[in-house]
Amino acid sequence: MTNELVKNAAGRMVPVEINGKPAVPFMGVGKYHPQGNRYAPRIPSNMDYPADGNKLVPSLKEALIRAGLRDGMTISTHHHFREGDLVANMVFDCASELGIKNLCWFPSASFSCHAYLLKYLDDGTISHIEGSMNGPLGRYCSEGKMRKTAVLRSHGGRYQAIQDGDVKIDIAVIGAGCADAFGNANGVNGPSASGLLGFAVADAQYANQVIVVTDNLVPFPCIPWQIQGNYVDFTVKVDRVGIPEKIVSGTTEVTRSPDRLLIAEMTAQFCDVTGIIHDGFSFQAGAGGTALSVGNFFADIMRKKGIKARFARGGSNKYLVQMLEENLVEYILDGQTFDLEGVRSIRDNPRHVMTSPFTSYNYHSKGNFAGMVDVVILGATEVDLNFNANVVSHSDGYLLHGIGGWQNCLFGKTVILPVPLFRDRIPVIRDEVTTLCGPGELIDVIITERGIAINPLRTDLLEKVRGSGLPVKTLRQLKEEAEAICGIPQKPLFTDKIVAAIKWVDGTVIDVVKQVKSEK
Amino acid sequence: MTNELVKNAAGRMVPVEINGKPAVPFMGVGKYHPQGNRYAPRIPSNMDYPADGNKLVPSLKEALIRAGLRDGMTISTHHHFREGDLVANMVFDCASELGIKNLCWFPSASFSCHAYLLKYLDDGTISHIEGSMNGPLGRYCSEGKMRKTAVLRSHGGRYQAIQDGDVKIDIAVIGAGCADAFGNANGVNGPSASGLLGFAVADAQYANQVIVVTDNLVPFPCIPWQIQGNYVDFTVKVDRVGIPEKIVSGTTEVTRSPDRLLIAEMTAQFCDVTGIIHDGFSFQAGAGGTALSVGNFFADIMRKKGIKARFARGGSNKYLVQMLEENLVEYILDGQTFDLEGVRSIRDNPRHVMTSPFTSYNYHSKGNFAGMVDVVILGATEVDLNFNANVVSHSDGYLLHGIGGWQNCLFGKTVILPVPLFRDRIPVIRDEVTTLCGPGELIDVIITERGIAINPLRTDLLEKVRGSGLPVKTLRQLKEEAEAICGIPQKPLFTDKIVAAIKWVDGTVIDVVKQVKSEK
Repeated sequence: MTNELVKNAAGRMVPVEINGKPAVPFMGVGKYHPQGNRYAPRIPSNMDYPADGNKLVPSLKEALIRAGLRDGMTISTHHHFREGDLVANMVFDCASELGIKNLCWFPSASFSCHAYLLKYLDDGTISHIEGSMNGPLGRYCSEGKMRKTAVLRSHGGRYQAIQDGDVKIDIAVIGAGCADAFGNANGVNGPSASGLLGFAVADAQYANQVIVVTDNLVPFPCIPWQIQGNYVDFTVKVDRVGIPEKIVSGTTEVTRSPDRLLIAEMTAQFCDVTGIIHDGFSFQAGAGGTALSVGNFFADIMRKKGIKARFARGGSNKYLVQMLEENLVEYILDGQTFDLEGVRSIRDNPRHVMTSPFTSYNYHSKGNFAGMVDVVILGATEVDLNFNANVVSHSDGYLLHGIGGWQNCLFGKTVILPVPLFRDRIPVIRDEVTTLCGPGELIDVIITERGIAINPLRTDLLEKVRGSGLPVKTLRQLKEEAEAICGIPQKPLFTDKIVAAIKWVDGTVIDVVKQVKSEK
Repeated sequence: MTNELVKNAAGRMVPVEINGKPAVPFMGVGKYHPQGNRYAPRIPSNMDYPADGNKLVPSLKEALIRAGLRDGMTISTHHHFREGDLVANMVFDCASELGIKNLCWFPSASFSCHAYLLKYLDDGTISHIEGSMNGPLGRYCSEGKMRKTAVLRSHGGRYQAIQDGDVKIDIAVIGAGCADAFGNANGVNGPSASGLLGFAVADAQYANQVIVVTDNLVPFPCIPWQIQGNYVDFTVKVDRVGIPEKIVSGTTEVTRSPDRLLIAEMTAQFCDVTGIIHDGFSFQAGAGGTALSVGNFFADIMRKKGIKARFARGGSNKYLVQMLEENLVEYILDGQTFDLEGVRSIRDNPRHVMTSPFTSYNYHSKGNFAGMVDVVILGATEVDLNFNANVVSHSDGYLLHGIGGWQNCLFGKTVILPVPLFRDRIPVIRDEVTTLCGPGELIDVIITERGIAINPLRTDLLEKVRGSGLPVKTLRQLKEEAEAICGIPQKPLFTDKIVAAIKWVDGTVIDVVKQVKSEK
């Protein structure tokens, strides 16, 4: 074990070892060349599985025992149930009952509903989390209470880490809205329908043992299967895998804030003026209220011009589904559905297509979809004067959000961050971001209610907006405007303890999060 | 190099080394336990691929050069175009023009149209074939003219061999009826539509270099994709990948022979009497005229009883599609389409589902679909008194057919071989099969125009047919009836030279084919 730190290519001090395993410092975008071969799971044989394909076992606990659960293992779950997930909590209840300790939880993301697991972090059932943390678990981590270092990855980075063997999953537990006894599973049917199961695809492919848990068992074949039963060891029927009304939670309505609406409209205007919106273009907008509004403004422009988009990348929701059904969008390539309209659409519409982090985001593949998207609309908690951005921590230093697909989407052809100039009187544009998640060279445009800043690297965009009447400013100008209103913000105080590492899409360490110094 | 032979568990003398690589003798059904890990391809990086996802290169030759084609490599193609395939011939034309020698051709199957490649086997461009051979190439092999030993595998065995690293594909060339420049591809659209591309899935996943060739390039995204562009290195647009009218060749009409119709009807009757045909059952019937007729008789019984099948396994054709559309079958789980109705159905009907040899047949996985099928109707060239069967060679010793999914399907719950008692006055039931492809313990029923033989292991079936009036006989009785008509057939004469090895589904060697002794 070493605590040695080195300065990475972004100027951040990062460890060369995390939880006793070597770590590669970030070398710059497209600079780290992976060596070696993908992780190769052991070769199974049909001779060790039921001849009739029926892999049902009576309970999750029994499945975990048969899967060989023991101290120190890495256990994965997915987050398609979002705030309605019941599976992860069940898994660690079983582990606790069995007296298992020191587990690494490797979720594709965690939510507030997983605050339930704090007791297992406290008592050592779970040693640490490798996965995006939203809310209470991130705060717990920021307070330095986790026994080991957390590791945060993008959706694509998580696929990369599994594929490359950076993380070896001992047992994957995959909750499914619909499954058959063989283990084929989808998220489109049943009372706990979550839309997709793409975040669990890598887990199924590479985990040593795979358990599918469902509350909606159907006779073989479960169609469609996004999880292939051929990767599955055990299936379990439980009463409920998710709470439906919380599965489709999240921001599902367009913003009503006049400032945010202005930002959204300016974003669409910018894309119109620069020719980004053209017949056959493609876009990705997130699920926040501003992003949803951007999509609506896009739709207005497309209707007016009589053009359509070749594809939109999801997260999908009722607005995007409407665009698909109105034929403003030819295809939705979806990663997760955010509401029931999204679930309905992906179930019934062949132009609404399931993707996974492998197809969409994995950087250690022969290309992925992210680079083919004409314009990507993303959020950020902070942006610095060099367009570097933060998406995981707040300016008070607390780790409160996951990376999601954010880093992966930075490879889109034009990346726009529509952000308010300040939040709760805290300016968003800073001299330095608290946590570096995305290098500025990949971020093209910052759009605020008081002006648009274009990355100087994008001379083409600067050229195109000339004379458009759009309020183009420098990031420095925008920062000064904010500080004139809110004052210069204080920096958060940290101890020296590294509580989390932030991975870049290629598995290198781009930054760390340190323990927040208590104000008490 | 050793020429040592050992007696395997089926009593056949097989080599311990094939083409300089160690080979494991067949140990019995479900006896060989694989060791170690799956093959792990090198880790690629997006940094080495075009940022905009456009992988088009001007020609197949250029793609092969960029893929690093050189002497001694293993080159794979698939057989979804069947007799209309133009791709394999193009590949070796390029190799020949480039002066490359000693290639191993690893097709999922070869057809008469590939007799074109005999000149490249003659001149050493191709050293040998590892793949099922139909017709002229098999005859060439049987004549001892191939420079190395051929290796024949089932569809599932081919997936297993690739996955386990038994065969390392250097360059996979995947012809597609439809593809985008990123490499996403399907077989359902375009002038050369072949239905599916499932036989190329393993090639895409595991080959070092992957080239997608199409005559029908569409803008990204090509939907659906059965081949994921994320595995693809290069894409090529050519004039034609297949000859449409020959793609949908094969036996596509029900038999008109009175004897074959009788066999088909008895097969359906047998399945009715034994309760195999019940509400929610599943079946798989091949593409031959007799098998198609069996399906039609099944349909009649289901209509009469007002029941339906949960699923049917394809190969699909107009008869099976009709059953799907009539709702006699809930799902078709398809591996390949045999006619244009199959292509139309798999394109348009969400209950007509694409499978691959991984989901359907791979024995080195955590189960596959084959074991879940209630009844499987297969063919055979020969059957011995212990229900062992041959599907690759004729009684004259010539290797003329591939294994296809035949071995894999033997894991169905009841396996029926409807076969004529003799063909061209050569009895089908023999003391010993010329080539052993399937162990008798997996073959349950032989149905001929003169009687039905039930494997003594299936006491349940013997019990069920009692008093049914079905003409149940022993294999010996049937053999004697045939010999009374045709005489006792002569055995073929072979030299000592092993020209081909027959793999079992687990990668072990179940038998060999020897050079036919010329009558000249």
